[in-house]
Amino acid sequence: MTISFSQQIFNRVEPVWQSYLTHPFVKGIGDGTLDKAKFIHYMKQDYIYLIEYSRLFAIGASKANDLSTMTLFGELLHGTLSFEMDLHRQYAEKFGISAEELEATEPSATMTSYTSYMLSQASLGGVENTIAAVLACAWSYNYIGKALAENPSSKEHEFYGDWVNTYSSSEFTELVDKCIQLIDQIGKTASPETKKKLEDIVVNTSYYEYMFWDMAENITMWDVPVTV
Amino acid sequence: MTISFSQQIFNRVEPVWQSYLTHPFVKGIGDGTLDKAKFIHYMKQDYIYLIEYSRLFAIGASKANDLSTMTLFGELLHGTLSFEMDLHRQYAEKFGISAEELEATEPSATMTSYTSYMLSQASLGGVENTIAAVLACAWSYNYIGKALAENPSSKEHEFYGDWVNTYSSSEFTELVDKCIQLIDQIGKTASPETKKKLEDIVVNTSYYEYMFWDMAENITMWDVPVTV
Amino acid sequence: MTISFSQQIFNRVEPVWQSYLTHPFVKGIGDGTLDKAKFIHYMKQDYIYLIEYSRLFAIGASKANDLSTMTLFGELLHGTLSFEMDLHRQYAEKFGISAEELEATEPSATMTSYTSYMLSQASLGGVENTIAAVLACAWSYNYIGKALAENPSSKEHEFYGDWVNTYSSSEFTELVDKCIQLIDQIGKTASPETKKKLEDIVVNTSYYEYMFWDMAENITMWDVPVTV
Amino acid sequence: MTISFSQQIFNRVEPVWQSYLTHPFVKGIGDGTLDKAKFIHYMKQDYIYLIEYSRLFAIGASKANDLSTMTLFGELLHGTLSFEMDLHRQYAEKFGISAEELEATEPSATMTSYTSYMLSQASLGGVENTIAAVLACAWSYNYIGKALAENPSSKEHEFYGDWVNTYSSSEFTELVDKCIQLIDQIGKTASPETKKKLEDIVVNTSYYEYMFWDMAENITMWDVPVTV
Repeated sequence: MTISFSQQIFNRVEPVWQSYLTHPFVKGIGDGTLDKAKFIHYMKQDYIYLIEYSRLFAIGASKANDLSTMTLFGELLHGTLSFEMDLHRQYAEKFGISAEELEATEPSATMTSYTSYMLSQASLGGVENTIAAVLACAWSYNYIGKALAENPSSKEHEFYGDWVNTYSSSEFTELVDKCIQLIDQIGKTASPETKKKLEDIVVNTSYYEYMFWDMAENITMWDVPVTV
Repeated sequence: MTISFSQQIFNRVEPVWQSYLTHPFVKGIGDGTLDKAKFIHYMKQDYIYLIEYSRLFAIGASKANDLSTMTLFGELLHGTLSFEMDLHRQYAEKFGISAEELEATEPSATMTSYTSYMLSQASLGGVENTIAAVLACAWSYNYIGKALAENPSSKEHEFYGDWVNTYSSSEFTELVDKCIQLIDQIGKTASPETKKKLEDIVVNTSYYEYMFWDMAENITMWDVPVTV
Repeated sequence: MTISFSQQIFNRVEPVWQSYLTHPFVKGIGDGTLDKAKFIHYMKQDYIYLIEYSRLFAIGASKANDLSTMTLFGELLHGTLSFEMDLHRQYAEKFGISAEELEATEPSATMTSYTSYMLSQASLGGVENTIAAVLACAWSYNYIGKALAENPSSKEHEFYGDWVNTYSSSEFTELVDKCIQLIDQIGKTASPETKKKLEDIVVNTSYYEYMFWDMAENITMWDVPVTV
Repeated sequence: MTISFSQQIFNRVEPVWQSYLTHPFVKGIGDGTLDKAKFIHYMKQDYIYLIEYSRLFAIGASKANDLSTMTLFGELLHGTLSFEMDLHRQYAEKFGISAEELEATEPSATMTSYTSYMLSQASLGGVENTIAAVLACAWSYNYIGKALAENPSSKEHEFYGDWVNTYSSSEFTELVDKCIQLIDQIGKTASPETKKKLEDIVVNTSYYEYMFWDMAENITMWDVPVTV
C-alpha cells in the first residue's frame, strides 16, 4: 500500500514538529504562563511574517497551472490578510499597538531568513515550490493548536486562549487540508527528484519554525555586535 | 501647473483609445448589431485573457512595497476571478458553454502575445511595471463602456447591454480609479527613465487592446500556414 | 522502442519548420535574391530579439537545479551576447549602422510578442520552461541553416553567405545539441502533464518563428491604425 | 558637495565591516593561525554560497535595463563560476575534496538564510535590488582582503596567502569597482524611498556577512535540537 506524499513528508518532519511541543514558548502558550513581553515580540514578528507569507500565496496564484489552484491561492491570500492577521491586530490592540505600528515592526534575522527562504524557493521554481513552502507553517500551527487544545483550559485562557482556538479551529484545519490536498496532487505526478526537492523545502521550513519559536522566546533581533 | 502621471499617460494614449470607438467590433456592441459568432470568440478569448490578467494582480501582490497595495491587488485578484469573470460565465451559459469549456479555450496568437507581454514586463521589473501593465485594459474598457453608455439604448440591449452596463458601472469605475491612484502614486517619485518605461508599457498594451478587438472581429487564431 | 523527448517534439513541430523553408524570406537568403531593405529590418529586429533571448539564458542560469546546467546557461548567455550578436553587428557595419543604433531599434509587435511569450513562460515556471522556450529558435535556425547549406552556392553568397555559414556551422550545431540534451534530460523524469506543457511551448515558439519571418518579409511594425 | 550613493552606503555600513576585521576567523586568516577544520567548513559553505551568488548575477542579467549592464552581469556570472570558484576548488584539492563533493555540501542555516535573502530581494524587485544585493559580499571581501594585505606576511602564508592575494588583487578590485559603478548609476535617478530600500539591503547583507564568519568560526549548521 502506498502512502500519500503529504503523509510521507509528515513522517519525515514529525520529530521536528514534536520538538515544538516541548519548546518553552509553545508550552507557555499552552499553560498560560508565557511572559507577555515575549508574546508581544512574537506577535509583531509574526505579523510582518504574515505579510511575507501572503506574498507566497500571491506567487502561487501567479504560477498556478489551473484556475482552481489560482482561485484557492487567491482565497488563501485574502484569508491571511484579513482573517489570520486580524487575530494579531486584535492582540495588538489589547497592548495599545496600532495596525500601523505592527506593520512598521523592524524585521528580526530569523523572520527575514525564514520568509526569504520561502520566497526565493517560490520565485526560482514552478508552483510546486510555493505549495511546499507554505506547508510547514500552516500545518505545524494546526498541529500545535490541536495538541494544546487537548488541554481544555488552554482554550479558555483569558489571553492565550484566542491563539489556541484560532489554530485548532475547524476553519483553520480546513484551510490546512486544502494545502495538504495541493501537495498530494503534486505528489501524484512529480518525479523522485522533484519530490526530494519539495521534501527538503518542508524540512528546512520546519527548522525555521523552530528557530522562530526560539527568536520569540529569547526576544532576539540580529546576532551581530554592531547594528547601524 | 503640473499634471498627474495618469493624465500625462492618458494624453499620450488617447488617440489609440479613440480608435477603439470606431472599431467595428466595439461599434457593434454599442449599436447591438455585432455578430454573435464574433462575440462568442471574443468572450472565450477574453475569459482566458482574464485568467492571465489575474496572474498580474497576483504578481503585483507579491511585489507590493506596502500592505495597502498588497491588499488592493489581493482584492483586484479576487474581484476579477469572481465579479468580472462571472459576466463571461453568464454570457457563456446563454450559449450553452460551460465554465470548464471556457477555461479550456485554445489561446489565440493575440491573446497569448498580449498577456505574455504584460506578464513578462511584470516579472522582470518592480511592482511599478505591474501597475503600468494592468492599466490600459481596465481603464480603456471603462473608457469604452462610458462612451457607449452615452447612447442609452446600448445599455438596454437584450444581449450586449450587460457588457455596457458592467464596464460603465460605478463599481468598475471605482476599481479603475484605484488603479489610476496606484500609477499616480508611482509617478510622484519615479525617475524620468522609469516614467518613460512605464508609459511605453501603457502604449504597447493599448496597441494590443486594438489588436484584441481585431482578433475578435476577424475571429482569428494563429496567422501561420501550418498548425500542429 | 521509446524515442527521446526531443525527437517526440521534433516530430510534432516538423511540419511548421518545413513551412519556413518555403517562406519567401528564407528562400531569399538561400538563393541570394533577398531584398536588402527586408534583411536590414530583419537584422535590426533580430538584434533586439537576441537581447531578450539572452535574458532567457540568464533566467535559465538563475533557476538551474545543478551547477553544470547553470554553467551551460552562463556559456549560452556569453556566447549569444558575443558570438551570435557579432554576426549582426558585422552585417550592420556593412550598412553603416552602429551597435548603438542596433540596440536602439524600435521593437515590432512580432518581436515583442515572441520574446514576451518566452520570457513569461520562463518566469512563471521552473527551469524546464526556459529549456523548452529557447529550443525552437536555436534548433530551427540550425535546421534552416543546414537545409540552405545543401545548396553550396548559398554559403558563398557575398552577402547572405555569412548567415548560412553561421547557422549551419559545427559550432552552432554543438550549441543546439547542448540545448537538445537539456530537454532530453528533462524528458526522462517529467510527468506527462509537464511534457505536454513543454511541447506546447515549442509549438507556440515555432509559430512565432514563422510570424517573425513574415514580419521581416513584410517589414511590419505594429498593425494598428494609430501609433503614438 | 554631494557624495556618491556608494559612499553614502559605505559610511553607513563601515562600522559593521570594521567588526569583521576583529572577528577571530578573519584575524585567523590574516595571521595564519586559523584552524584548518574551520577553514574547510568555511570553504565548503562558501562554495555553495557562490553557486547561489551566481544566480544573483543571472537574475541581474535577466532584469538589466540595457545591454551593457546585461553584459557586465554575464561577465560576473562567468567570472564567479570560473575564476572565484576555482580558488575554492584548488583549496579543496589540497584537502583531497573533489569539486563534486564541494557541490554536494549540505547547506548550513546561515548560508541558506543569507543567499535566500539576496535571491528573494532580487526576485521581487527591479534590477536595482540585485545590484544592491551583490554589493556587500564583493565589496567587503575586497575591504577585508586589502586590510589583511597591509600586513605583507599575510600574503605569503603558505595556506591562507592565496585567499588574501585573491581578494586584495587588482583583478578582484576591478570587479568590485564595476559593482560600485552600477549602484552609483542607480543612485543618480532613484527616489529617496528606493535608496532607503537599497541601503537596507546592503545593511542586512552586511549583517549576514558577519553571521557567515560566525558560522565558519563555530562550524555550525542548523541550531535546532532535531535534524531529519
